[in-house]
Amino acid sequence: MLQESSVDSSGSRFAPLVVLELASDTKEEAITWLLSRIRDRQQNGGAELLVEQLGPGIGVEEKENPNMFLVGASMQRLLYGAEDLGLFKECTDGSMRAFTFASKHNFKDFKGDGDSFLSMAECQYVIKHELDTLRAKEETNVPGYSHAKLYPGKSIIRRLLSKGILIQMFPLHEKEELKRLSFSWYKKVKLSLQPLDDIRHYYGEGQALYFGFLEYFTFALVPMALIGVPYYLFDWEDYDKYVVFAVFNLVWCTVILELWKRRSASLAYYWGTLCRKKAFEEPRPGFHGVLGHNPVTGRAEPIYPTSKRHLRVYLVSLPFVLLCLYLSLYVMMIYFLMEGWALSIYDENPTFWTHILLFIPSIIYAVVIEAMNLIYRYAAEFLTEWENHRLESSYQNHLVLKVLVFNFFNCFASLFYIAFVMQDMELLRQSLATLLITSQILNQFMEAFLPYWLQRRRNKKMIRKVQKRRMYEEKELPLVEQVRLEADMSTYLGTFDDYLELFLLFGYVSLFSCVFPLAAVLVVLNNITEVYSDAFKMCRVFKRPFADPAANIGVWQLAFEAMSVIAVVTNCALIGMSPQVRSYFPESETQLILCTVAAEHVLLGFKFILTFLIQDVPKHIQDKLARLEFESLEALKKKKMLEASQLSKTIQ
Amino acid sequence: MLQESSVDSSGSRFAPLVVLELASDTKEEAITWLLSRIRDRQQNGGAELLVEQLGPGIGVEEKENPNMFLVGASMQRLLYGAEDLGLFKECTDGSMRAFTFASKHNFKDFKGDGDSFLSMAECQYVIKHELDTLRAKEETNVPGYSHAKLYPGKSIIRRLLSKGILIQMFPLHEKEELKRLSFSWYKKVKLSLQPLDDIRHYYGEGQALYFGFLEYFTFALVPMALIGVPYYLFDWEDYDKYVVFAVFNLVWCTVILELWKRRSASLAYYWGTLCRKKAFEEPRPGFHGVLGHNPVTGRAEPIYPTSKRHLRVYLVSLPFVLLCLYLSLYVMMIYFLMEGWALSIYDENPTFWTHILLFIPSIIYAVVIEAMNLIYRYAAEFLTEWENHRLESSYQNHLVLKVLVFNFFNCFASLFYIAFVMQDMELLRQSLATLLITSQILNQFMEAFLPYWLQRRRNKKMIRKVQKRRMYEEKELPLVEQVRLEADMSTYLGTFDDYLELFLLFGYVSLFSCVFPLAAVLVVLNNITEVYSDAFKMCRVFKRPFADPAANIGVWQLAFEAMSVIAVVTNCALIGMSPQVRSYFPESETQLILCTVAAEHVLLGFKFILTFLIQDVPKHIQDKLARLEFESLEALKKKKMLEASQLSKTIQ
Repeated sequence: MLQESSVDSSGSRFAPLVVLELASDTKEEAITWLLSRIRDRQQNGGAELLVEQLGPGIGVEEKENPNMFLVGASMQRLLYGAEDLGLFKECTDGSMRAFTFASKHNFKDFKGDGDSFLSMAECQYVIKHELDTLRAKEETNVPGYSHAKLYPGKSIIRRLLSKGILIQMFPLHEKEELKRLSFSWYKKVKLSLQPLDDIRHYYGEGQALYFGFLEYFTFALVPMALIGVPYYLFDWEDYDKYVVFAVFNLVWCTVILELWKRRSASLAYYWGTLCRKKAFEEPRPGFHGVLGHNPVTGRAEPIYPTSKRHLRVYLVSLPFVLLCLYLSLYVMMIYFLMEGWALSIYDENPTFWTHILLFIPSIIYAVVIEAMNLIYRYAAEFLTEWENHRLESSYQNHLVLKVLVFNFFNCFASLFYIAFVMQDMELLRQSLATLLITSQILNQFMEAFLPYWLQRRRNKKMIRKVQKRRMYEEKELPLVEQVRLEADMSTYLGTFDDYLELFLLFGYVSLFSCVFPLAAVLVVLNNITEVYSDAFKMCRVFKRPFADPAANIGVWQLAFEAMSVIAVVTNCALIGMSPQVRSYFPESETQLILCTVAAEHVLLGFKFILTFLIQDVPKHIQDKLARLEFESLEALKKKKMLEASQLSKTIQ
Repeated sequence: MLQESSVDSSGSRFAPLVVLELASDTKEEAITWLLSRIRDRQQNGGAELLVEQLGPGIGVEEKENPNMFLVGASMQRLLYGAEDLGLFKECTDGSMRAFTFASKHNFKDFKGDGDSFLSMAECQYVIKHELDTLRAKEETNVPGYSHAKLYPGKSIIRRLLSKGILIQMFPLHEKEELKRLSFSWYKKVKLSLQPLDDIRHYYGEGQALYFGFLEYFTFALVPMALIGVPYYLFDWEDYDKYVVFAVFNLVWCTVILELWKRRSASLAYYWGTLCRKKAFEEPRPGFHGVLGHNPVTGRAEPIYPTSKRHLRVYLVSLPFVLLCLYLSLYVMMIYFLMEGWALSIYDENPTFWTHILLFIPSIIYAVVIEAMNLIYRYAAEFLTEWENHRLESSYQNHLVLKVLVFNFFNCFASLFYIAFVMQDMELLRQSLATLLITSQILNQFMEAFLPYWLQRRRNKKMIRKVQKRRMYEEKELPLVEQVRLEADMSTYLGTFDDYLELFLLFGYVSLFSCVFPLAAVLVVLNNITEVYSDAFKMCRVFKRPFADPAANIGVWQLAFEAMSVIAVVTNCALIGMSPQVRSYFPESETQLILCTVAAEHVLLGFKFILTFLIQDVPKHIQDKLARLEFESLEALKKKKMLEASQLSKTIQ
């Protein structure tokens, strides 16, 4: 399964799974201490893992870091770790159960010593978890670093990371597997679904769910794209027919989100993350405060008063976000000035070039929007970091909220302004098209090709170096070089930006596509290239990320649902403004508005009822989950009954 | 703790807890079989309870039923039963934990043999659960009744109930305790909170939560009542100031429901129901179908296809409900005709009597509404029963939905019509007042005084009979007579009607109280008398109900929240219609409507954000719950570590 093995200190060979890179000037005593803690037995509070220093590379130069360590573990240790984590696996009877070492032979893929029972991603996740939960015992600081304070129960790895002693910790790629995966994923030019199970196998559930959602979203857009094409071809520009399209939009965006929940639950069930119990969340590495006691675990832990955090959120972050929204509005107004100016030039002298000029303000605006989003993103990260959230999940939620609100405002404010204040459908159509196309091009470039190009340069340099020194015949790099190469790759920062992009695309399509029916077609095309570019960047550009055992797409489900509510309101308003509907109320505008509002309320009510009616988890999976719970209750009862009867016998 | 003891067949005395009443013509063999199954040891599939026939009463007449049985259990059996049920109890360290017999001495109130550890309501609940889960083994029918089919795993009690062999099963009252409770609850004339803990102790959590909610709702109304009084006193009839009141309404109804969730969670935590795991729900007694296998438990069970049920719901029940709504509208129109007729008489001849006549149509309409609600209630119960729901909870949800929609429509349609179609605020105020006052008077009468009067008559007859025969000196009835008296009392049908009444009152207050500011005062007064009359009927009129370990007010929370959304919309519309607001938009009605709609959307959005921001469970209880879960995870981990190290030692 693993491409190469290494020899550990005790002489036995082990497969390297995870790399630890310490700063090159780390003191010897700290290294010795860390390694002994990692190797120490679990009873003594160690992690009981195998660890070995990476040998010198071929190009041994001054700048190469000698402090790189390979971490692995025996298969039995990994299996116990999987039990600790409560990983769910398929049993021989087809149900999913939490793996336990004692019942290992009940599991479907368990053969022999269980060598290929856990995927490499799972093994790496086990090792990450074991390293993360390696805790200080009596040490008061990291040996040799009096400023790197420790207290009993503090995660050693997190302290080393926050003090910059540990530079990074990353899992290794698996060349053979990666080659097979990338072939079936994006190299094969044929129409087929993505190999979601393989992606999950290699990258973990969080990644696979993203790609699953991307695929689902693309398929969900197909009917809309198909309906949109005749609108474009037959040039139904009088907007008379767009009422039909708006009604379709409205139903569509509600139904697809509900159905996605079901699909996501199915996927998560078969991947074993749906009913996995989450472990207690540790404070995030950057969290700081006065040392105190956690009220839940009773462990020593930094404490930071919630009231202070609230002050920071409401008195600094919130005004900052509002200021940014104001700025964004200001930029929008400049755009409309430019637009008016371009129009006046065209009106004066209508040539081909001045016609082109009409599009220039929109393009500039689209580029500015992307730039503002990017800058704001950094500011939001800085602010959220400064808010000092205790948990990674709370940090993520605050960051997502900040970024979402601004991005939504920044991207859609001008469209809303055109649609409802200026009521100029022609301009709306043109703006939407420009925004959509420009942002797609920019995104694809920034996201995949630029990093790939940078990575390629580094890659080539390394291969040239290797070939110069040793003249390898095969093109494959030896392990040592591969590790060093991967250490230099950019770090994948999670699915945040990918989901954000989908969120904005979903917005363009569900809010205004009745005005520009080609939007869905464009988004479908974009999504198809997105699959390829995302797959490509996962496989070739970035370091392998640790698996993330997600059960759903989390806060993004909420974000998409909020967008779909806004879409219902927007589409109702667009319908109410259409000449077709207006013609029914030739005399009274009041009547028209009241009817539109009433219809909107009914639709919103219907949407909420639909949310209740469509069950989030398909019936057959609900049954399986209920069965699992029932069995565990029955087992408990039986055990208690046995104890009771034994007790009563003892008494007799 | 218990008022009297009885002697069971084996000669030892036991406290009777629950009464089983079999039909008077039950065959002897069935009785013998049932009693032996109840007395049999648990290992043999029995319930291991104590049971004894009730002796003949004083007035031994032909019509007295001899087949009444008292059921009790030893304290140890009850404690094991409590463990089975997973009852949560307070530990010596102040936390709430699931009771286990082995760790009994860690619990705060456990002394000696644990005689007063479980409340009588809990003991009765344990016995009910044990009887309900007494299952058939190999029996194919109840002995002597070939039509009363049994199959392995079928609950015996449920079959006996559905075949009419078992007439009823009810818990006994506890005279001393009841006297104390009723004194502190409703006999003491002083301003104080209700003894919620005592109510929970005696009646269980479901009842106590209802009374807790009633109390909370009354207190929440006080500020609104206080604001309402000056409106009435200073005769602010120009409706200019009602905008302030409507805004207050709007915030009020959102905030109080969110805060109730927190209060409810607190109560449920200290009563031990918040984190209790629910047992698997058995099919309800009336459920029928073809014998098959439950996909979850694997037990033999009747199966009824969901598609058939859906057909019944959507093709019969839904049209029926719609028809009833139409009928209700029709009645409303007749009311408006009568109203117009009364007005025309008053206009012709304005005397005192014709002024009184103005109120007559409203009063008649209010009475008709109550009557229609009552009749519809029976129809809804019949239909829901016929829909053949498998679970009691699903039956309840369908029933509540049916009844709620109709009641809402029936009570509020005329008010909405007056407010938004006729736009006659004077008539709205008058209708609201009449509806509110009439329905309150009717309710209090129907709910408490009528049943009490009937019960009193029966009571007196019994006491007279007893005094005639034996000439007791003390006024207390002996156990035998008490049991027979309680068996004759009406059965309490749960909190459904009580919650429904509160729901409608909440509607009157939150929807239209800005027009009739005294509404809140009236509802507060009504609630105060409601506490007394409900308390009184619980203690004196009805059979004691079995405890219902509820963790929250269930589907009613949802119903109240739906009402508060409707209240936001209604209040916004009322504000938009007010002359005060209209004066800001003297020229354009369109502008006014658009602004109102925009404000409404912002408020609805704000409401949903508020729902997210206010946490449903207070922080200190979240911490305690997390601590409990953390401890169980840690214990599991320690156990596994121990097993692993033992295993590795064995291998070595």
